[in-house]
Amino acid sequence: MTYCCGILVRDGLVMIADTRTNAGVDNISTFRKLHLYTTPGERIMALASSGNLSLSQSVRSTLIEGMENPETGEVETLMNAPTMFKAAQRIGRAIRNVQNVEGKALEAASVDHEIAFLFGGQIKGGPLRLFMIYSAGNFIECTTDTPYLQIGEHKYGKPVLDRAIGFDTDLYDGLKIGLISMDSTMRSNLGVGLPIDLLVVRRDACEPELSYRIEPGEPYFQDLRERWSAALRAAHMDIPRPPYRTEI
Amino acid sequence: MTYCCGILVRDGLVMIADTRTNAGVDNISTFRKLHLYTTPGERIMALASSGNLSLSQSVRSTLIEGMENPETGEVETLMNAPTMFKAAQRIGRAIRNVQNVEGKALEAASVDHEIAFLFGGQIKGGPLRLFMIYSAGNFIECTTDTPYLQIGEHKYGKPVLDRAIGFDTDLYDGLKIGLISMDSTMRSNLGVGLPIDLLVVRRDACEPELSYRIEPGEPYFQDLRERWSAALRAAHMDIPRPPYRTEI
Repeated sequence: MTYCCGILVRDGLVMIADTRTNAGVDNISTFRKLHLYTTPGERIMALASSGNLSLSQSVRSTLIEGMENPETGEVETLMNAPTMFKAAQRIGRAIRNVQNVEGKALEAASVDHEIAFLFGGQIKGGPLRLFMIYSAGNFIECTTDTPYLQIGEHKYGKPVLDRAIGFDTDLYDGLKIGLISMDSTMRSNLGVGLPIDLLVVRRDACEPELSYRIEPGEPYFQDLRERWSAALRAAHMDIPRPPYRTEI
Repeated sequence: MTYCCGILVRDGLVMIADTRTNAGVDNISTFRKLHLYTTPGERIMALASSGNLSLSQSVRSTLIEGMENPETGEVETLMNAPTMFKAAQRIGRAIRNVQNVEGKALEAASVDHEIAFLFGGQIKGGPLRLFMIYSAGNFIECTTDTPYLQIGEHKYGKPVLDRAIGFDTDLYDGLKIGLISMDSTMRSNLGVGLPIDLLVVRRDACEPELSYRIEPGEPYFQDLRERWSAALRAAHMDIPRPPYRTEI
């Protein structure tokens, strides 16, 4: 399993991804799922993936090697995409290329070949954007109404995002709430685990402000987990017990 | 969709179920999913269902009309089961009967025919028990290690149960935490909705201590939802922002 979330607020972008992959519960490994492509000051792009690891890795390799555009003859990569929208389209095209070859073979073998990506970033002169790209290569874009997107095991960590994240949320509060969402997911699904990779990009900076890996035992994250647990316990203790009586 | 949870603590049993059914988002109805079978002081049994409504209703009707035991000739119902374990077995048998007829036809039509039940209660002289019964009629029993079971849309509401419920939790705190779990689910999945039916059974009473329906606008539940939201906001605000700096 995997859990990745992207949060796009007024001040910038947060992306968080776990690193656990598993082929069955008896075959667990650590793979980076959050990848950064940047020419600082010019462009920053981050790609997080969930689903079949062989397919998502092939999609990334395709995007780095490039795909020849039959009309222009240009070799199109992520790094030479002129806009974030065109870059998202290229990711979609790379997904369809990989699905057409490996995806079909996996389907014939009844192996799950779903993949999904979060793709966020900014190219100088253009807006900071965040996309979620599906297994068929189509995609949606994050808006101010719901300023976050999730891939992978998204349900456990969604309630806190729904309640706490708004477009005006401070950038580092966004990171903090994203980490709480990650913690809720890790607590309920063993397939999501440390280390956690995270990225913070301030709007119009076109470079990472923070790129960090939280390793097991890291003190701040451990403290966040304990404080959140204690706060939830205190929160429900503060609510009065139900006054209900059976109506006859 | 559906969300039902059962909580079995030292002092007794709580069962909570929503009432929303939907065949697509454009066809939403209200159906009671939590059903009570009781001879007060002698036996109390409660059955909550999720999944295909036509199948779960047929299972309940089968359990009320009874199934003839080919060996003894006895017509076996829920109400004449000698123990909770034997009652759970009868539910399993009723599920298999229904799956063998309607389930196969639904499968042929590619219609989902999964169902699941929570079954809790006590027969005088026996213990208070809680079971989760699967689509194949097999079942598991709730234990003191993890004193709750869930069916339906269980993920959104699981983190708060994992954190807050223990076997020694007060009975009405259990009800309160179950309602918070229901609230988290309702917030994130429109397929789960009010009214909510709930049941509280004190251990060894063999009758309902509380059987209640929370209707839309009911003041305590509305207050609980608001307090919980406010407490979550306060909880994450109290946690310091991440101190991370990029490591070069």
